Amino acid sequence: MYDTIQNKFLSLKDNKVFELVVIAVIIASALEIGIKTYQLPDTLVSLTTYLDVVITVFFVFELTVRFAAEEHKRAFFKSGWNVFDSIVVAISLIPIQDSEMALLARLIRIFRVLRMVSVVPELRLLINSLLKAMPQLGYVMLLMFIIYYIYAALGSYLFSAIDPELWGNIAISMLTLFRVMTFEDWTDVMYATMDVYPWSWIYFLTFIFFTAFAFLNMVIGIVVNVMEEEHSRERADLAKETGEPTLSDVMRELQALKAAIASKESSAESATKPN
Amino acid sequence: MYDTIQNKFLSLKDNKVFELVVIAVIIASALEIGIKTYQLPDTLVSLTTYLDVVITVFFVFELTVRFAAEEHKRAFFKSGWNVFDSIVVAISLIPIQDSEMALLARLIRIFRVLRMVSVVPELRLLINSLLKAMPQLGYVMLLMFIIYYIYAALGSYLFSAIDPELWGNIAISMLTLFRVMTFEDWTDVMYATMDVYPWSWIYFLTFIFFTAFAFLNMVIGIVVNVMEEEHSRERADLAKETGEPTLSDVMRELQALKAAIASKESSAESATKPN
Amino acid sequence: MYDTIQNKFLSLKDNKVFELVVIAVIIASALEIGIKTYQLPDTLVSLTTYLDVVITVFFVFELTVRFAAEEHKRAFFKSGWNVFDSIVVAISLIPIQDSEMALLARLIRIFRVLRMVSVVPELRLLINSLLKAMPQLGYVMLLMFIIYYIYAALGSYLFSAIDPELWGNIAISMLTLFRVMTFEDWTDVMYATMDVYPWSWIYFLTFIFFTAFAFLNMVIGIVVNVMEEEHSRERADLAKETGEPTLSDVMRELQALKAAIASKESSAESATKPN
Amino acid sequence: MYDTIQNKFLSLKDNKVFELVVIAVIIASALEIGIKTYQLPDTLVSLTTYLDVVITVFFVFELTVRFAAEEHKRAFFKSGWNVFDSIVVAISLIPIQDSEMALLARLIRIFRVLRMVSVVPELRLLINSLLKAMPQLGYVMLLMFIIYYIYAALGSYLFSAIDPELWGNIAISMLTLFRVMTFEDWTDVMYATMDVYPWSWIYFLTFIFFTAFAFLNMVIGIVVNVMEEEHSRERADLAKETGEPTLSDVMRELQALKAAIASKESSAESATKPN
Repeated sequence: MYDTIQNKFLSLKDNKVFELVVIAVIIASALEIGIKTYQLPDTLVSLTTYLDVVITVFFVFELTVRFAAEEHKRAFFKSGWNVFDSIVVAISLIPIQDSEMALLARLIRIFRVLRMVSVVPELRLLINSLLKAMPQLGYVMLLMFIIYYIYAALGSYLFSAIDPELWGNIAISMLTLFRVMTFEDWTDVMYATMDVYPWSWIYFLTFIFFTAFAFLNMVIGIVVNVMEEEHSRERADLAKETGEPTLSDVMRELQALKAAIASKESSAESATKPN
Repeated sequence: MYDTIQNKFLSLKDNKVFELVVIAVIIASALEIGIKTYQLPDTLVSLTTYLDVVITVFFVFELTVRFAAEEHKRAFFKSGWNVFDSIVVAISLIPIQDSEMALLARLIRIFRVLRMVSVVPELRLLINSLLKAMPQLGYVMLLMFIIYYIYAALGSYLFSAIDPELWGNIAISMLTLFRVMTFEDWTDVMYATMDVYPWSWIYFLTFIFFTAFAFLNMVIGIVVNVMEEEHSRERADLAKETGEPTLSDVMRELQALKAAIASKESSAESATKPN
Repeated sequence: MYDTIQNKFLSLKDNKVFELVVIAVIIASALEIGIKTYQLPDTLVSLTTYLDVVITVFFVFELTVRFAAEEHKRAFFKSGWNVFDSIVVAISLIPIQDSEMALLARLIRIFRVLRMVSVVPELRLLINSLLKAMPQLGYVMLLMFIIYYIYAALGSYLFSAIDPELWGNIAISMLTLFRVMTFEDWTDVMYATMDVYPWSWIYFLTFIFFTAFAFLNMVIGIVVNVMEEEHSRERADLAKETGEPTLSDVMRELQALKAAIASKESSAESATKPN
Repeated sequence: MYDTIQNKFLSLKDNKVFELVVIAVIIASALEIGIKTYQLPDTLVSLTTYLDVVITVFFVFELTVRFAAEEHKRAFFKSGWNVFDSIVVAISLIPIQDSEMALLARLIRIFRVLRMVSVVPELRLLINSLLKAMPQLGYVMLLMFIIYYIYAALGSYLFSAIDPELWGNIAISMLTLFRVMTFEDWTDVMYATMDVYPWSWIYFLTFIFFTAFAFLNMVIGIVVNVMEEEHSRERADLAKETGEPTLSDVMRELQALKAAIASKESSAESATKPN
């Protein structure tokens, strides 16, 4: 009997209309979050409170359906997206009276919009591919962090007396250097230090060159990688679709031909020998 | 008799001189629009008014020629460019006295410059290829919008009290975030929020990283796609131009050879058998 | 006798040491230009005047050598670089007393530094390849100009009353739009117009999207083109260097084999027939 | 006996735990440098002094181990990374009392963080590949420098009277032009010069176009190069891994077949001849 219920849940979960309803509820939840940022009349405020309860209940229902439809209950929590959905829904359920916590609850509710990503397969695919590209960038990131760290240490040793708000300690200096890298009023920062150390432009220009170069390298790394994958996939697709033979096929054919000739030769020999 | 008129229109439409006259009139119309933005003596103002009438009449004439030259009248409006041309010309024809509407009429007349794109085939091709690249970017755009929406909601919940002009509601917050993404005085925005929430730099830095990463992905997506197309087209061109045989050709030749040898073998057998 | 002089000039022109002397004089000329931008003691000023004369004389001498070494005098002026060199040297020769013209003469002398490009072959190659990439970008440039023109016309119609210094006429508006495209204090420009037209952010955001997209397209156009060339050149180099046979070679070999078998068959036939 | 010591050092040097200890000490040294940029209580200051001594002693020990483990002592200093490590460690050893020199000593100690790069092989590889890409960019860099130099000379001749702080001499002008290239408040610089020379926007726009174009070319140069390498490496890997035959292999096989047929033919001839 449990099986039939599971099958019903499964067919509901895979139902196209149900999927669209889920997406509609997520959009409604997103709109509710957006509307709350405006000054609203009291009637609308109480309406959003009701809407909030409805959305929470629906999300619990949807998650239950998805969980019940899963054959192997443990596999359900192996998917990062399911864990993410569960946490977001679970937190929405915690009742909050405290005004301090109310803000936190509102903030967490915002992340319900991210459920859009976990529901639309194309977006999930996109995020997965972004996450896959991450680790190979690890060493370039580390290198960039080392450049930042060294320059930030240099900066706070040399310039902290000039402007403690920009170079007070290594953490503030790193934030200032990030600002310099985005070219955001970086000359103001440089001119201030040049009044004391006239050669400090070397510090800024070398920093810009190093980070730009490292960043460039990172970007190229991603591009090359993405294209490589695209390339090999395309090649495989091409071979499958057009039925274009590979060099290996040609080679095999050629060796078959050679064998055929060799065998013929020997048969010809045996045929001519009796003569 | 109608047919001969149609043919005359067709030959006029395809006439090289006529095409150049059309381009010249569009340029004249563009110059007129440009000149009107300057302070002009009264004589020149009345001249531009006359010029405007002449251009409008010419555009109506040109569109009539193009429409008359079209064999299947319905097919005419299936081309987006023809529809665009017709709308621009039709709006120019509406007589306007009201001063309020006069500005609108002037604004719409500006779009006559866009007729340059619909007339020069190379530009039309360029726009078409841009439009073709659009849909595949749809999901990256959606992802970016979700990132914007979540950060804008967070921003207006947290920072609206600090600066309502920047974080007043979710729409204003999204505009502020776009500004942050273009690095336009973004540190001013950040430093203001850091006075209240010292950890708010995390908000800005993660936003910059996420959007930069998504944007990068989008750009790479276009690049890969364009190159892929270019690549396959080039390969097809190469095969056609140089007459370089494909692996399939080699394979076919090889199998023909095999068949020839096999048939020879059997003929040789039949030739030697009687012996 | 003239021939022997020509040969002497030719050997001088191709002399490695002479080339290095020319480069050294160009660098000296560049340094002289740079030094003149500083406040100098009078002795040094008079020294630079002498140096200037020496450099001018040397350039005339070098150009004479190059011209004399050329076998076909007309071919000399067919090279754009030679024409450029001649003009720069010729202008340096015009004697100037007038103080107004003195500034102009100084400015023109700066372009002598560009002779570095015409002398170092690698730089000449680089410039040539840049110039070659230019024409194919023509239509994207034209498209971008049309976008600019339309937005500038719209801008000066709508916003000229708000800030005539930024939107006074179509030329000023185009400069302002270029500024917006570089993200240089673009929000200041936008916020000013939003006070009057609250929806004017649409104007700025669509402009940024359109130009960014067109620019992206342009960049990709160059990348694709450069890679295409690189690719085909590499392929040609590879075939030449490694002696790797092409599919055409394989095909030819295969057909030769087929012919050989066919001829053998007929010879075998004629050999077996008498039997 | 010395040999056994060397072997012990070698096994210590290649020990995985020892490597991790070295990395841990470098991280400790980095943290110490970072902590020193904060206001610290006296006890912590004296603690960092002790820590500094410990780190210096450890680095001397580690370098000694690495040097002792090296079989050919001369080869040790042929590696740029070893030389770098030795210099950094040697400078840390110089005792400093002078307060003026104390700052310098602190600054040099920062570069100990760079030892991270020399110790982690992946980072060393990354830096090596960056350095390898450098020389081929040399000529683009030179071209860019020439553009900068000419524009800086023009700028300081024309605009030095307008704002000596921005255009005082050729060096200051180059810094100002770098600022213009990063779009940092570049319109302020331009508007100031346009008050005197209304056409000076040509100067700035052409400069931006030239440098952007040259920069673009440089970036594309790197991309193309990196992809080329990646491509050829991938091709080589592919051939090795899959055992896919090359066209040369096919050709060789084909010629062997031809020879086999030819030899058969002659043998067949000799076999039929006696008949």
